[in-house]
Amino acid sequence: MGGNRIVVYKEPGRVEVEDHDMPKLEVPADVAQAKGMSREAPHAVILKNVSTNICGSDQHMVRGRTTAPAGQTLGHEITGEIVEKGNDVQFLDVGDIVTVPFNIACGRCRNCREGATGVCLNVNPARAGSAYGYVDMGGWEGGQADFVMVPFADFNLMKFPDRDQALAKIRDLTMLSDIFPTGYHGAVSAGVTTGMTVYVAGAGPVGLAAAYSAHLLGAAVVIVGDLNKERLEQARSFGCETVDVGQTATLEEQIDQILKTNEVDCAVDAVGFEATGHGGGEEKPAQVLNDIMSITRAGGSLGIPGLYVTGDPGAADPDAKEGTLKVRLGLGWAKSHSFVTGQCPVLRYNRKLMMSILNDKAHIADAVNATVIPLEDAPRGYQEFDRGAARKYVIDPHGMIPAA
Amino acid sequence: MGGNRIVVYKEPGRVEVEDHDMPKLEVPADVAQAKGMSREAPHAVILKNVSTNICGSDQHMVRGRTTAPAGQTLGHEITGEIVEKGNDVQFLDVGDIVTVPFNIACGRCRNCREGATGVCLNVNPARAGSAYGYVDMGGWEGGQADFVMVPFADFNLMKFPDRDQALAKIRDLTMLSDIFPTGYHGAVSAGVTTGMTVYVAGAGPVGLAAAYSAHLLGAAVVIVGDLNKERLEQARSFGCETVDVGQTATLEEQIDQILKTNEVDCAVDAVGFEATGHGGGEEKPAQVLNDIMSITRAGGSLGIPGLYVTGDPGAADPDAKEGTLKVRLGLGWAKSHSFVTGQCPVLRYNRKLMMSILNDKAHIADAVNATVIPLEDAPRGYQEFDRGAARKYVIDPHGMIPAA
Amino acid sequence: MGGNRIVVYKEPGRVEVEDHDMPKLEVPADVAQAKGMSREAPHAVILKNVSTNICGSDQHMVRGRTTAPAGQTLGHEITGEIVEKGNDVQFLDVGDIVTVPFNIACGRCRNCREGATGVCLNVNPARAGSAYGYVDMGGWEGGQADFVMVPFADFNLMKFPDRDQALAKIRDLTMLSDIFPTGYHGAVSAGVTTGMTVYVAGAGPVGLAAAYSAHLLGAAVVIVGDLNKERLEQARSFGCETVDVGQTATLEEQIDQILKTNEVDCAVDAVGFEATGHGGGEEKPAQVLNDIMSITRAGGSLGIPGLYVTGDPGAADPDAKEGTLKVRLGLGWAKSHSFVTGQCPVLRYNRKLMMSILNDKAHIADAVNATVIPLEDAPRGYQEFDRGAARKYVIDPHGMIPAA
Amino acid sequence: MGGNRIVVYKEPGRVEVEDHDMPKLEVPADVAQAKGMSREAPHAVILKNVSTNICGSDQHMVRGRTTAPAGQTLGHEITGEIVEKGNDVQFLDVGDIVTVPFNIACGRCRNCREGATGVCLNVNPARAGSAYGYVDMGGWEGGQADFVMVPFADFNLMKFPDRDQALAKIRDLTMLSDIFPTGYHGAVSAGVTTGMTVYVAGAGPVGLAAAYSAHLLGAAVVIVGDLNKERLEQARSFGCETVDVGQTATLEEQIDQILKTNEVDCAVDAVGFEATGHGGGEEKPAQVLNDIMSITRAGGSLGIPGLYVTGDPGAADPDAKEGTLKVRLGLGWAKSHSFVTGQCPVLRYNRKLMMSILNDKAHIADAVNATVIPLEDAPRGYQEFDRGAARKYVIDPHGMIPAA
Repeated sequence: MGGNRIVVYKEPGRVEVEDHDMPKLEVPADVAQAKGMSREAPHAVILKNVSTNICGSDQHMVRGRTTAPAGQTLGHEITGEIVEKGNDVQFLDVGDIVTVPFNIACGRCRNCREGATGVCLNVNPARAGSAYGYVDMGGWEGGQADFVMVPFADFNLMKFPDRDQALAKIRDLTMLSDIFPTGYHGAVSAGVTTGMTVYVAGAGPVGLAAAYSAHLLGAAVVIVGDLNKERLEQARSFGCETVDVGQTATLEEQIDQILKTNEVDCAVDAVGFEATGHGGGEEKPAQVLNDIMSITRAGGSLGIPGLYVTGDPGAADPDAKEGTLKVRLGLGWAKSHSFVTGQCPVLRYNRKLMMSILNDKAHIADAVNATVIPLEDAPRGYQEFDRGAARKYVIDPHGMIPAA
Repeated sequence: MGGNRIVVYKEPGRVEVEDHDMPKLEVPADVAQAKGMSREAPHAVILKNVSTNICGSDQHMVRGRTTAPAGQTLGHEITGEIVEKGNDVQFLDVGDIVTVPFNIACGRCRNCREGATGVCLNVNPARAGSAYGYVDMGGWEGGQADFVMVPFADFNLMKFPDRDQALAKIRDLTMLSDIFPTGYHGAVSAGVTTGMTVYVAGAGPVGLAAAYSAHLLGAAVVIVGDLNKERLEQARSFGCETVDVGQTATLEEQIDQILKTNEVDCAVDAVGFEATGHGGGEEKPAQVLNDIMSITRAGGSLGIPGLYVTGDPGAADPDAKEGTLKVRLGLGWAKSHSFVTGQCPVLRYNRKLMMSILNDKAHIADAVNATVIPLEDAPRGYQEFDRGAARKYVIDPHGMIPAA
Repeated sequence: MGGNRIVVYKEPGRVEVEDHDMPKLEVPADVAQAKGMSREAPHAVILKNVSTNICGSDQHMVRGRTTAPAGQTLGHEITGEIVEKGNDVQFLDVGDIVTVPFNIACGRCRNCREGATGVCLNVNPARAGSAYGYVDMGGWEGGQADFVMVPFADFNLMKFPDRDQALAKIRDLTMLSDIFPTGYHGAVSAGVTTGMTVYVAGAGPVGLAAAYSAHLLGAAVVIVGDLNKERLEQARSFGCETVDVGQTATLEEQIDQILKTNEVDCAVDAVGFEATGHGGGEEKPAQVLNDIMSITRAGGSLGIPGLYVTGDPGAADPDAKEGTLKVRLGLGWAKSHSFVTGQCPVLRYNRKLMMSILNDKAHIADAVNATVIPLEDAPRGYQEFDRGAARKYVIDPHGMIPAA
Repeated sequence: MGGNRIVVYKEPGRVEVEDHDMPKLEVPADVAQAKGMSREAPHAVILKNVSTNICGSDQHMVRGRTTAPAGQTLGHEITGEIVEKGNDVQFLDVGDIVTVPFNIACGRCRNCREGATGVCLNVNPARAGSAYGYVDMGGWEGGQADFVMVPFADFNLMKFPDRDQALAKIRDLTMLSDIFPTGYHGAVSAGVTTGMTVYVAGAGPVGLAAAYSAHLLGAAVVIVGDLNKERLEQARSFGCETVDVGQTATLEEQIDQILKTNEVDCAVDAVGFEATGHGGGEEKPAQVLNDIMSITRAGGSLGIPGLYVTGDPGAADPDAKEGTLKVRLGLGWAKSHSFVTGQCPVLRYNRKLMMSILNDKAHIADAVNATVIPLEDAPRGYQEFDRGAARKYVIDPHGMIPAA
């Protein structure tokens, strides 16, 4: 059998490319049983993956900071070509090039009908919401692979209008499956609009995408903070101001130097629970969240796309192991802050961002430093990314991505 | 063959109950071809209709005020029991009692994903949006019948949680297919909320549902205007103030008597293009719209669920025949009014309103004077309704509706 | 001198009525200096207080759970009659009966222009936002008094249209200065609308007002939780379901018994930082917030009108003393919750709620069990309220409130 | 006396610069009496005008297309330096450089509190809303002058943070008083956001500002339509596509050539009632509105900043003389369009747009081709603008504008 190479988590710090069976038009048995649907999936397609990216949230698993078991398949940032479809896929055809939102959604439940595809009720026995290749998400196979199965395809997939144009812009379009919408969602939920001053905590790919999105949304000034000088350099490459949170000057002081005031209008937490204290050192999982309360004006909103988890076996204390963090709630309340958390519902944004890319308004690949690697190099990509490379790794399983 | 009795438009002023073939799990050929989908419909169900109402918009066809041809099947307000389903209906089962939104929607296009199910892009070759049994809507068979086919069932249908409870409250629940959400949409789009003063033009079933919804939304005062004294009496039965627009006192004067000011916060046009001038007499298709501009405060919104059409062969002048009306746009602009038009997207509201009914917060059947008749009496229902009876006719094809 | 009796905090557990000088048309010297305005206040009025309520947030000061010094004057829930006005009060006159939002706002800064009157930038040297008679709020004199000065009167005050009607409904209208809008804001920010199921934590006056508002907003089911049986009884008096969080059954289990599901659509935290664990006992300041995450559906919003502070000298641990609490952020993130905190901007809501009261749609006084006492009995009112009386104490300094 | 040169409408086609008395800190007598306020205005300031622009809506008066009498003073686009202030101006000082929203607003009525400053209730006896130097707006003196009085200054005015920076960027900042926010409002109310395709009808200054704003808001493609080739050239200068509505190809056909579809996501009417039919020729006041319905997708919104009036003595037919136009309402309803009309509430947007200008994100002066002229040349400016010059005339009364 076999025929489908796929990236698999083996133990903390190690992934491997394995040969698995080809995916079928079937939903996972547990999901089917729990939700009362048929195992057979007339709504599904099989994709030949054109591009599939490594995500910072994959790193949480690979670093052993989740309850992911050895053997967990990986990958939820997928763009592909349809090679097979079920008999109820009505509006897509074999040969279409499509982008796959990382959230798996049925398109038929109360939440999906309301646009909340990040918390679909029908695709995960454990809780609302799901994703490909992720722990506690219902057992859907990962997409860092040659092929992948996508259920409820008419609802989930967005077709690119022109195949040649899609391949020519694939480095940008591949970001539509997750980080571009996720960064954009962070900025939108922080209330970024024309003329705002914005702070983005974290200069990894999601932070850079949030900063880039803040520019798209019309921000007057975008400030990015991180400890990693290379990533801050990357942020400056597209017009951001930067703050090195490893310096002795406080965050407020550095912001004051840029803006002549120590508060911003809006802030985005693009770090999540693996935050460290200023100057590095020990982990302080609520550090970033508390920081952004300090420097956001009264009445502001905080967009929190950075991941916080309910189970973190690697945490320093028992509270943090179950996702309970020390939050300066009194401060947030005094400033009438709103906090918006959770998975980005990709479908809410991906069409808009695709239009921006196709009409040359958005160049997200350059902003996040997209770096194409073959599937067999995925383990190296994981390692370099984990060491802080200012790159977004894009896996090209079939050699379909044209040279830049 | 045969086996499905169905109400059919024959000529202006006349409908008949005919015997047609049983519906199949198939979409209309024209729709399938135009939109590239399969004729066969694994996403569809067949319903045995529990209740199916006569709508004021059916009357436009039956009065010859649309381009509906003889033979047009009728009925788009449907509640039913699933008796057959396709192999991609995953979350509903035979035996479920469900409410059918009058708008047919695919659940998979850009508009449906955004919740705009009233303008689905995949169900009507002629334009965006569709409905069962209606002219220019793609040829879907009407639901004033024993049975009806519903496509994209998992997306379109909402199941009632308990069969016995559903049948016990069926007079209220049957209004979820159209007029209750439509009236509610009118009120919502006019901006009705806690403490508002509201004017609803028209005391037919949609007007009464809008007035009832305004109360649900917390309006301080709801004023209903009409020429029909029996319908105004019906409005008063649930706490509305009323205005008889046939009186010599102007609308402003009558409102001033009620509110001590001649403007309301919000207004709803539940009449549409078949409006007459004050005091009755000749038709003035923009009369109601112009009225509500006059009596709505500056900065207000106007909800316009009342139907305006693009083709009206019965209109008095050539402009009106193509839906071009004399609108006091200068007045509306001076008052910074917003105008919200179009079909109600039923799915946006039906779950909320169902919850209100099931928890005894909403008694819409009494408000609109629901009147149950057998299917064979549909022609009589049409006639009485056309003469201005203050009733909402509910057809009971299978004798499933318990006595009140 | 003298002439103005006023309630003053003396020490933990004790308030007294003192005789102070009559208020003048002047802003506090510190505020004037910090914000560059004139001490003299042509924009201000002096009110003869018709009614002035004791608030749960006053209790935090009186229990010694804030940094309020001895001598702090109290009272921020004020309704009064204008007896003097400055030369730039253009739209109000001596003799008008007005309601005073507890938030002091200038009406001229960026935040006030945007409707965020809870975080006005010009009335408090210490931070954004202010209130009468409260610690860290700029030193504005309290309103549990015979007379009070209100700055920026044209902006802040809302006049009742008819004096006689206002006095006749004063028990209801007095709630417009704080708890009715605050409860309503909690419900609105939790997303309560037609057909929702709602949980309100806390059956004190704000909790009851939130529950009452949830009904006004059209909730299908409103569940109130508390440890105090008398207050739960009060909640049941206007149609709420209740949960006794002192029972051994968990919150989820009790909700499941009511709803047949262990999650609600929306939840409101009307308790704040002085929360205790279930079954009473030791204080757990994040207990209520963590509870409402557990029982609110994925994608829901949490309205948090309950007060969280930045300085709590009476807290059990050093983190809580500065307002840092142990929040289950991982859980909230997994459920894509939004959190809305802060002072209610009363002006956003008081007109709507006044209209509901004046048109007999809202009877908030009965819901919160309004209890009128003379000014000299304020100390007794504080004591009874602190002991958990299911009452809202309304002080009547001049005997202007008619007998019920 | 004298001392204040001011532009005055004399007869159709003719304005003159006259010498009037210096303005005082007083509101117009009619306004004071009608609204119950003092003639004396402690809330007002006198401005020495730094820049004051000629507006397309001034042209309606000067062409005799309104009921403006001879002697009407002109000018509502004002930027100035405070030279005198009343005793209740608390947060501004003599010497501050400020931008004046064209809408006069009290900041104290229900509408202003809700941010609807375009329909203030206290500044115009005739209706809601007002402006400087405009017919039927309460008699406030025009600002195309050396000096002007601004009431409710703390509320209405926005101060530029730095005087030197303000003068250096004055060609851009002068657009904040009207056309930049008005164009932006048109785009916002049409629903323009990231990735949208947008059609703007009209390439005069407001149309260009709407098109420029659409880019700021992230539009993927902006198409501007007009009959004037010079103005279309101006639109192309900042990246717009253009449509010449004087060509034989229909609007749909020309849009289809650009987008490969004949519908846009959003449209803005920046023309208003003085529209002509395609190819020029006779006036058709509803032409533009009907056009944008034709080419806007179902479910879209139409932003209508273009002026429609209630009295037009120069109109071709009796209906149009009172602002009643032939609108294709049936079409709009079938497409579920929303229509947003009225004056832009400038205060909602001017701070955001100022931030964009000050941080070099917006260069509106170049987009609209700002052209500085001395006050004495105002008559020439009016004439050239009326002839269709692709310019925005900025009057510089005191020679304070630095050379470009």
